[in-house]
Amino acid sequence: MADFRKDAAEVVRWIDRYLSHARDYPVLSRIAPGAVAHALPEEAPEQGEPFERIMADFERIVIPGITHWNHPRFFAYFSISAAPVAVLAEALAAALDVNAMLWRTSPAATELEDVVLGWLARMMELPPEFHGIVYDTASIGGFTALAGAREALDLDVRDRGMAGRDLPALRVYQTAHTHSHIEKGAIALGIGRANVVNVGTDDAHRMRPDLLERHLRDDVERGFRPMCVVATVGTTSTTSIDPVRAIGEIARRFGIWLHVDAAYAGIAAVLPECRPILDGIELADSLVVNPHKWLFVPIDFSALYIRDPEILRRAFSLVADYLATPEEGVRNYMDYGLQLGRRFRALKLWFVMRSFGTQKIREILRGQIALAAEFAGWVAAEAGWEVMAPHPFSVVCFRYRPRDASEKEIEAANERIMTAVNAGGTIYLSSTRLEGALVLRLAIGNEKTTRDDVRLAWDVLREAAANA
Amino acid sequence: MADFRKDAAEVVRWIDRYLSHARDYPVLSRIAPGAVAHALPEEAPEQGEPFERIMADFERIVIPGITHWNHPRFFAYFSISAAPVAVLAEALAAALDVNAMLWRTSPAATELEDVVLGWLARMMELPPEFHGIVYDTASIGGFTALAGAREALDLDVRDRGMAGRDLPALRVYQTAHTHSHIEKGAIALGIGRANVVNVGTDDAHRMRPDLLERHLRDDVERGFRPMCVVATVGTTSTTSIDPVRAIGEIARRFGIWLHVDAAYAGIAAVLPECRPILDGIELADSLVVNPHKWLFVPIDFSALYIRDPEILRRAFSLVADYLATPEEGVRNYMDYGLQLGRRFRALKLWFVMRSFGTQKIREILRGQIALAAEFAGWVAAEAGWEVMAPHPFSVVCFRYRPRDASEKEIEAANERIMTAVNAGGTIYLSSTRLEGALVLRLAIGNEKTTRDDVRLAWDVLREAAANA
Repeated sequence: MADFRKDAAEVVRWIDRYLSHARDYPVLSRIAPGAVAHALPEEAPEQGEPFERIMADFERIVIPGITHWNHPRFFAYFSISAAPVAVLAEALAAALDVNAMLWRTSPAATELEDVVLGWLARMMELPPEFHGIVYDTASIGGFTALAGAREALDLDVRDRGMAGRDLPALRVYQTAHTHSHIEKGAIALGIGRANVVNVGTDDAHRMRPDLLERHLRDDVERGFRPMCVVATVGTTSTTSIDPVRAIGEIARRFGIWLHVDAAYAGIAAVLPECRPILDGIELADSLVVNPHKWLFVPIDFSALYIRDPEILRRAFSLVADYLATPEEGVRNYMDYGLQLGRRFRALKLWFVMRSFGTQKIREILRGQIALAAEFAGWVAAEAGWEVMAPHPFSVVCFRYRPRDASEKEIEAANERIMTAVNAGGTIYLSSTRLEGALVLRLAIGNEKTTRDDVRLAWDVLREAAANA
Repeated sequence: MADFRKDAAEVVRWIDRYLSHARDYPVLSRIAPGAVAHALPEEAPEQGEPFERIMADFERIVIPGITHWNHPRFFAYFSISAAPVAVLAEALAAALDVNAMLWRTSPAATELEDVVLGWLARMMELPPEFHGIVYDTASIGGFTALAGAREALDLDVRDRGMAGRDLPALRVYQTAHTHSHIEKGAIALGIGRANVVNVGTDDAHRMRPDLLERHLRDDVERGFRPMCVVATVGTTSTTSIDPVRAIGEIARRFGIWLHVDAAYAGIAAVLPECRPILDGIELADSLVVNPHKWLFVPIDFSALYIRDPEILRRAFSLVADYLATPEEGVRNYMDYGLQLGRRFRALKLWFVMRSFGTQKIREILRGQIALAAEFAGWVAAEAGWEVMAPHPFSVVCFRYRPRDASEKEIEAANERIMTAVNAGGTIYLSSTRLEGALVLRLAIGNEKTTRDDVRLAWDVLREAAANA
């Protein structure tokens, strides 16, 4: 293994340099479509190549095609971090290469999953009956929750399916700000987009419980079967917070499943001052929170907390002869979802939680929320700019609004600003639409982002506006 | 980053020692349920801990709870490898931490995915029109293919769903040997287990096309809507090979989707002498093959090849305002499946293909198939043992059959043998059932497995039989 040590040393040097000098890279890749593909041969090499040559091509061909998510000035979507210690944990998990499908196929993977999700649950003060399971993404976690909600209706969909029989249309309730994975899940499960009802929101983009109740009453009257309501704590566009308790009380009254999507913002509940965002969570049936978003582990890692995990087993469990094992009283997580194969994802979160400690985690989150507030303050104080939504966490929606400009001109100016700053490479941000209007989003979430980085973003934005 | 270099050096030393001395570990973990969980505190630490302490606990608490999938004498399920070079690639991918959801969110991730799946397609001589997409697992690849098959029926399930309207029951055809993820996918998609039809098999466990045709004819007559037939190249129990061409011709005649699950064995098509296993593949609509099974990359990496990727986009694409991008003519792979978040999985396969070269890949596969044949020869030549199924690849189904023993006694003896050898720690193997009878499976797939390892497995098995 002399080669491995040598190659590994080269990779460690590379990663070390990368993590210490990420700011040297343009955040958004500048390559033209096809540039990476065209730089590579059509066929795999017949003979193996030396490691140095592969690393050289990695640097020369791949890196220019990377948009640097782990860059302290990546402010787009939800900004994320791969903490160095978590990168090392991923290497260890890859070397072990275990499949955590059954308890026996790596007891430590199953049990460490229970331990770290228990730690996280207590940090977030979740109800003690909530059981956490690790999935890859919130898309799968949310889909699994919806599948649980469908199973909970006791319509025997597992065995008899949904077509060719006399079933009412099943309905899912969300808002226009709910993440698109819920609608995708509803498509996949055979619910259909037409049965995903967008409940109206208030002026802070929060679901209006009174309108939810009205939809539910109307739908029941019309013969539909309400299945699930999705409340979001930290929507993707503005990080608005649906009123979980009020929604939960209505869900209980109508006997439907409440799923809470807190993929990004749920982690903030580890801060006592933010814990109220989960007020009413004891009324929920499931909750998704993504450590790969705001808890410093590399993608992918999504946690689904569920009140009654047995319902997932009822929905999904199929134990083929070749998967039967003698152990009793253990959890085989392959039984709780669509995927049989499961990576050892708990390891990286365990490394992060131990290496950081909860105190440092709280400090970082608090610092990022404060930085976002400070940025919003700069925007609000500057003539010709406006903050477009409340910013309870680390994301600010804002736009440039030159005096006397029409909505069309404002939109064009903001588009020019975004294109210019992203092309400049110093920062990368993304946009969304609120009531039809284009707004810019600045999302803070990388553990290495400093006040100087945010200050620089603001300078770059104002400069671009001056030239827009 | 002095700490990172020091910590990384410790991890590299650990991995190096692990990969060179994997044989020192008992393959199957010996811990009792709860041992890992009980060894850890109930709460995350308040203060961060030094890296050495985390690594010490990793070694002391986690490692005894690991079942060593990357061990040269792991012969259970499908045996797999994490090649050292792929472990390094995973570390690089974790450091970059990109989300390959959109082309622009890392063009290199999208394009390298196209490149390496193109390389693999040409190595397997797939039809040039097949387009490859990377997913995490065959469970998701198969589910996505079934979703494509449902969309191809043009029943407007995406918008209108499957309940509350007059749809015929949709039917999926497989065999009793088809992997359970297909049935799970059918449950998820609202097809229902009752509409998953097990077509009878011949004496080599292959789907009988004549029976498939009869089912299809009957089902159409009864008003069902056939949706998809799944042919498996390399079933999980015995690695039997369904006749793809004959099945494909029937599927074409009935206008239904043919999905080929070649998650494990498809890779063998890179050997000219094995390419006939995919005879008729040009009649298929989709094919799954898993590089994380038999192509030396760590879990997870599953490739779905599809004739018409647009059908997946039609089924799944939802572009929220916050995900809109200006590029035209690029593929945004979030549009082609359930998951929005997508790891940079192509990197590790690129490293493996370049580092190994196709010649060495062929040599390893050929060597493993030959080793399996040799093992089967030993079993067949030994009194009191029997090979239970053809072994076209690197998996052998066999059992101990002492003279004059009843079926019940044979079963009990084989159970005792399996328990004993797995507890012994030298090897780990799993079992399945064929026509109700318990059979042992020896699966070869780790790149470091030698003839001595297989010989040792055979010695251990015979010794256990002598004591059974």
